[in-house]
Amino acid sequence: MKKIIISVIIVFQCFAISSQNKDSVVISSIFSNALTSPASYENLRHLCKDIGGRIGGSPQAAKAVFWVNSVLKSAGADTVYLQEIKVRSWKRGEKESCLSRSDKYGKDIFNVCALGGSIGTGKKGISASIIEVQNFDQLKQFGEKQIKGKIVFFNRPANPALYNTFAAYGGAADQRVVGPSIAASYGAVASITRSLTVVTHKYPHTGIMHYIDSLPKIPAFAISTLDADILSDLIKDDPSLKVYVRSTCYERPDTISGNVIAEIKGSEFPDQIIVVGGHVDSWELGEGAQDDGIGVVQAMDVIRIFKELKLKPKHTIRVVEFMDEEMAQRGGRKYAETVMKSKEKHIAAIESDEGGFTPQGFSFDAGENVAKRMDQWKPLFENYGLWLYHKGYSGVDISFLKDQNIPLFGLITDSQLYFDYHHAASDVFEAVNKRQLQLGGASMAALIYLIDKYGF
Amino acid sequence: MKKIIISVIIVFQCFAISSQNKDSVVISSIFSNALTSPASYENLRHLCKDIGGRIGGSPQAAKAVFWVNSVLKSAGADTVYLQEIKVRSWKRGEKESCLSRSDKYGKDIFNVCALGGSIGTGKKGISASIIEVQNFDQLKQFGEKQIKGKIVFFNRPANPALYNTFAAYGGAADQRVVGPSIAASYGAVASITRSLTVVTHKYPHTGIMHYIDSLPKIPAFAISTLDADILSDLIKDDPSLKVYVRSTCYERPDTISGNVIAEIKGSEFPDQIIVVGGHVDSWELGEGAQDDGIGVVQAMDVIRIFKELKLKPKHTIRVVEFMDEEMAQRGGRKYAETVMKSKEKHIAAIESDEGGFTPQGFSFDAGENVAKRMDQWKPLFENYGLWLYHKGYSGVDISFLKDQNIPLFGLITDSQLYFDYHHAASDVFEAVNKRQLQLGGASMAALIYLIDKYGF
Repeated sequence: MKKIIISVIIVFQCFAISSQNKDSVVISSIFSNALTSPASYENLRHLCKDIGGRIGGSPQAAKAVFWVNSVLKSAGADTVYLQEIKVRSWKRGEKESCLSRSDKYGKDIFNVCALGGSIGTGKKGISASIIEVQNFDQLKQFGEKQIKGKIVFFNRPANPALYNTFAAYGGAADQRVVGPSIAASYGAVASITRSLTVVTHKYPHTGIMHYIDSLPKIPAFAISTLDADILSDLIKDDPSLKVYVRSTCYERPDTISGNVIAEIKGSEFPDQIIVVGGHVDSWELGEGAQDDGIGVVQAMDVIRIFKELKLKPKHTIRVVEFMDEEMAQRGGRKYAETVMKSKEKHIAAIESDEGGFTPQGFSFDAGENVAKRMDQWKPLFENYGLWLYHKGYSGVDISFLKDQNIPLFGLITDSQLYFDYHHAASDVFEAVNKRQLQLGGASMAALIYLIDKYGF
Repeated sequence: MKKIIISVIIVFQCFAISSQNKDSVVISSIFSNALTSPASYENLRHLCKDIGGRIGGSPQAAKAVFWVNSVLKSAGADTVYLQEIKVRSWKRGEKESCLSRSDKYGKDIFNVCALGGSIGTGKKGISASIIEVQNFDQLKQFGEKQIKGKIVFFNRPANPALYNTFAAYGGAADQRVVGPSIAASYGAVASITRSLTVVTHKYPHTGIMHYIDSLPKIPAFAISTLDADILSDLIKDDPSLKVYVRSTCYERPDTISGNVIAEIKGSEFPDQIIVVGGHVDSWELGEGAQDDGIGVVQAMDVIRIFKELKLKPKHTIRVVEFMDEEMAQRGGRKYAETVMKSKEKHIAAIESDEGGFTPQGFSFDAGENVAKRMDQWKPLFENYGLWLYHKGYSGVDISFLKDQNIPLFGLITDSQLYFDYHHAASDVFEAVNKRQLQLGGASMAALIYLIDKYGF
């Protein structure tokens, strides 16, 4: 009996080893293929250079939807279709301006932009005194008496001392997202928020802000970190400084747009789905390269890789290129609703929306069975720099699937440079490195290969 | 008895945990300090922009030695001195040229540079037919009959399908290092080697080549990957193509130069040394930013960090900024000789010479005791992206210490972009990211802190 057990164990081990060897050969071929294909980089070039920045509801976003649709068709997907949604349609209007006037220093001009979703100042702009704060507590201390009629300047930096720049961003984001409303609650007439980036440069970084319903709406701006430092110095030297801001942004009625969906049908379980995607929409100051053109073209590349390597998945691989991530996440919400209604079985959903830098691993928002699998698969990924596996939030668009207990995955990439580009005019095609981009698509294709083969 | 053992274990574990907590606080402060100090980036700016490319024996290299010396003094080192060496003094001369003449296609111009150590063509240049090969076997197959009097064009690419670009580089480097001599052995009059990079761009990448003593010396060139592809196409279309090359490089007598050495004296074991360094010299086509200005300023930053944080090492921390890595490694050799003679005890030597990209871990060329320690320290590094620990070669300059059984360490960084810059005109200050640079210095400072505290 003991002998039999030992034999069984040996046979099982041999099988396990040979199976792992086969997997490592396939994964190696996935990476080699991705690293030698120009497809994802040339797709990104088109999306950035020929279409450009594409906020939901814009002509560029509409153009991008049709183009993504056509590329997915030519990549060899079995089926490609649009999932209609209505998106918010916020327009920036004319280029914003911001300048200061001081008896002591004369006039200074600052690089600003309206925050996404902000109302405009009106054509005449707003001129007022300015008050600088680091946080909402300080705002409270100043109180309505000192704030009323003024512009509030939120100037707490994203902390550069933190290794992870997403943590630095997260630690300062309240000033952008709800800062304007909090300032308004004390009678401010406008707000200017220091850009959410750890670098000091001239680009203002936009991003969504949300008005709190019960409070007055005031125009909200972002200022570049370089200009924030200068403005802060000026205020210290001349507290009577007057600042003028102007924006003509406005909201138009909701517009029809859509998620773009493409599939390679599963050979054994066509009704069981593995989702992979990024988001098509982007802020319009730049070209939406790092955020999130890269995610869009990497998901396309998954299809291309599976087709070129003749990997026939047992489950259906479904690329979902989401719309409206930046404004109201209606693409992500709609997709999740549809899944809920259809009761379609989803094995996993994977998102790439942390920039096209060197991949470092995967986050996963899932149970212990998934954690165990990831642990088993680790050795297969080590040769490709994928060492990081942490449980947690894994992407905005797929987050709406969480209620349905679908394992969610996010591609983690080197975060050091992401906020040099995020939501700013610097987020252009040239900011993306070809090899780093290719590696992202390969990493997701390799993960999908394993999920498809072994499940959880 | 069992109880006592358990108590001892618990006490030991508590001690270990609290000690690890203290270490993680110190390491966190090292990273925070580095990420918020402009020092290393501004030092690199000066080295690149005000001094520039600095091949051994050049006025720029001499200037760099004095400047490095002065910065180390002002960083607060207890002692700073020069270690004199004689270096090779090879000069590029005038800008090289390369053009093709074809009855079919007329004239084409190619981006080339002389390989380091090459003889020149003479002012008139060399005009000859050209023969393309992928490797030395092919050269052998063609034989003297077909090669004699021709220019040999080595065109095997560094393989872009490989994840690790150092492996891609290594797999093609024979064509540069000994290719010219091998070609000469079949009667070639000059050689042109495809640049050792995985990217296709216009920059020729130089680097050392070695003549084999028994064989005739022929002028040796590198051609950009973009131009190599064009030249290859032309040769296929018109095998009778004539190619003209010209270089005026030459060797001058050896020149006096030196390693720059600086120390923080150890409080308990001043005679026991931990070395950390990079190399001051660089190729002169660019500014020697990634190779290896970053290593030089990161080692300086180790001193600055220890001084600013008032970390008092028990052992002496010795920064050695080596000279002549690119040509003949005389700085590394000299340093090792001196250590051998003085019998000075070295605990460890650490080198940063893989580019100033996001650090990924450490290589180590050392025994099992070191491997065990690295394994224990891993958890302390994980928050800073340092996951990779592999046994193996750890840097050129410190490699000469290997015979003396000194544990050697190399900072491993993300390799994806390194060969975009390596030995080319593209290796300029702007190619280096501030945060990634800062993280390299912090990673080495953290490793030194642990080595100093615990040893092996």
